[in-house]
Amino acid sequence: MSKFWSSLVSQLKPYVPGEQPKMERLVKLNTNENPYGPSPRVLEAIRAQLDERLRLYPDPESEQLCSVIATCYGVSPEQVFVGNGSDEVLAHIFQGLLKQDRPILFPDITYSFYPVYCGLYGVESQLVPLTGDFEIDPQDYLVPNGGIIFPNPNAPTGRALPLVEVERIVAGNPDSVVVVDEAYVDFGAESAVTLVDRYPNLLVSQTLSKARSLAGLRVGLAIGHRDLVEALNRVKNSFNSYPLDRLAQAGAVAAFEDEAWFNETRQRVMDERARVTLAMTAMGFEVLPSSANFIFARHASQKGADLALRLRERGIIVRHFDKPRIDDFLRITIGTAEQNDELLQALKGLVN
Amino acid sequence: MSKFWSSLVSQLKPYVPGEQPKMERLVKLNTNENPYGPSPRVLEAIRAQLDERLRLYPDPESEQLCSVIATCYGVSPEQVFVGNGSDEVLAHIFQGLLKQDRPILFPDITYSFYPVYCGLYGVESQLVPLTGDFEIDPQDYLVPNGGIIFPNPNAPTGRALPLVEVERIVAGNPDSVVVVDEAYVDFGAESAVTLVDRYPNLLVSQTLSKARSLAGLRVGLAIGHRDLVEALNRVKNSFNSYPLDRLAQAGAVAAFEDEAWFNETRQRVMDERARVTLAMTAMGFEVLPSSANFIFARHASQKGADLALRLRERGIIVRHFDKPRIDDFLRITIGTAEQNDELLQALKGLVN
Repeated sequence: MSKFWSSLVSQLKPYVPGEQPKMERLVKLNTNENPYGPSPRVLEAIRAQLDERLRLYPDPESEQLCSVIATCYGVSPEQVFVGNGSDEVLAHIFQGLLKQDRPILFPDITYSFYPVYCGLYGVESQLVPLTGDFEIDPQDYLVPNGGIIFPNPNAPTGRALPLVEVERIVAGNPDSVVVVDEAYVDFGAESAVTLVDRYPNLLVSQTLSKARSLAGLRVGLAIGHRDLVEALNRVKNSFNSYPLDRLAQAGAVAAFEDEAWFNETRQRVMDERARVTLAMTAMGFEVLPSSANFIFARHASQKGADLALRLRERGIIVRHFDKPRIDDFLRITIGTAEQNDELLQALKGLVN
Repeated sequence: MSKFWSSLVSQLKPYVPGEQPKMERLVKLNTNENPYGPSPRVLEAIRAQLDERLRLYPDPESEQLCSVIATCYGVSPEQVFVGNGSDEVLAHIFQGLLKQDRPILFPDITYSFYPVYCGLYGVESQLVPLTGDFEIDPQDYLVPNGGIIFPNPNAPTGRALPLVEVERIVAGNPDSVVVVDEAYVDFGAESAVTLVDRYPNLLVSQTLSKARSLAGLRVGLAIGHRDLVEALNRVKNSFNSYPLDRLAQAGAVAAFEDEAWFNETRQRVMDERARVTLAMTAMGFEVLPSSANFIFARHASQKGADLALRLRERGIIVRHFDKPRIDDFLRITIGTAEQNDELLQALKGLVN
């Protein structure tokens, strides 16, 4: 606290990201990174940009990238917004679209950055409890509100809402912006991008940090009606004209151009997820059905915090949230087959 | 305008960056980029990071980079803040430090992003006119205020304030944050970083886009008392945990490690600036004394808008601001010797 801070600063409760340990030789299953690297074409495309042109500003509109994304999803480039990671995109969404007179709605158990954005921009919110099975019930979102946001699949539960249920929420709220945060959608859920041409109140956000394996490059996007995208561009152009550097733009374009790599690696993650789920269930874990690149699981007799600590002693980092309703769960990123073997081996020693 | 926008969005007047033309073979002297590329060590450092590690999130704290910057400026790493370009750093400064009960002060002729930030965060401001010679008069800033920000050297004038005068403003406002925006400082002005240990109200921002020749990589920084830096980190961690990607962090570290390249290239820019200034003065231009990598000049008998247009017809882009007091000026980036020759050649044809 300092007399020089704006009154906002002391009220902020900043987001706490998963630990990024500096030690090597850890099995790092705590921040939902992809166990497989990005497409070799991404590395090539960045290498081709690595020259004296770095002295020049990047394209402030990221036109080529927006155009490639538009082609990939069958929308027009004016329906695409890109930012420095989907967290930046979400921040602009909160400031430009979700700050309304009425409180916005989001699940009580969800991405923990949402309440942080509310604090940053003075957005009123109302938490909507997940069901006893940790599911989103669309019915709960058919009430007056200033906007709605939820991840699909939800985090940290991993549970996906079928597209028809997403549509029920969007169609039932014609006067509110409904934001579907699809950070993990490519690991088995249905994208709502197919609905954006029918619903001017629908905005879908995605990231290149998960299925495109580019957490280290910081690229996120949103797709929706051009009026919604225009709001985001107005905020962006009042904040930072050039959010995406030259290398990130080039790498992101290449990532969308290599569909084969994308499909192969995400399939491998999904296959491993099935194997880990089966093995952990056999050990007495309840594993929520996951459509993400992580699982959310609790053991019948062991505390989540204890398990996280004891895994850590064995060099395996997973994420544990010390929060009501979920404090016995572990959120475990799906790793490579070898990493998952190490995890299962360690868990066997702990729960037997 | 859309019913889905927050009330803020329709009031925003976004910043308009200098044009980034997609045509080749232009003499581009409009956005104050460095005519020389970044240090080869920057390219090498980025190349060394170009592998499967891009799947991993970057260090959210950019620790190594903060540490290298701290060493370079003789401060502690806790006094250093970094962001995705200095525009992002400035945005956080406006939200976290300059949003106060009283209006903040900045020059009437200055970086045109400042009023945009005021609009974005609801910061009240009061413009302080430059003198008739387009100088900042420190006396004008010794009045009650909620904070002060000015570039040194100022943009688009290029005029620098001597360090003793900067210190007068800082010392005379012990209850206000004074932000010195040193985007162009390395081209001949004195940095106020040497004062930060004596003034807890002083914050200095800088960029790697100009003298470090990395506009395409998006890295900016601020240096000041750790309480001021903490405010910026609180805002940053409520906005985007990972603003700097892995490649930008690595490249920026290398840029600070190659002092020789930095010194050689900025000296060449300063030498060319002297030559261009002399030649244009001989053609009847008034060229304000510049400590930046651009000059601000007006001709005795020709209109600024006309000159800009006619230069453009000859493939040379400079920046013209259609604003009171400065609408007869051109802001011209110092290019390579060859580019400057082309500029001078073209101007000769236009003003004779």
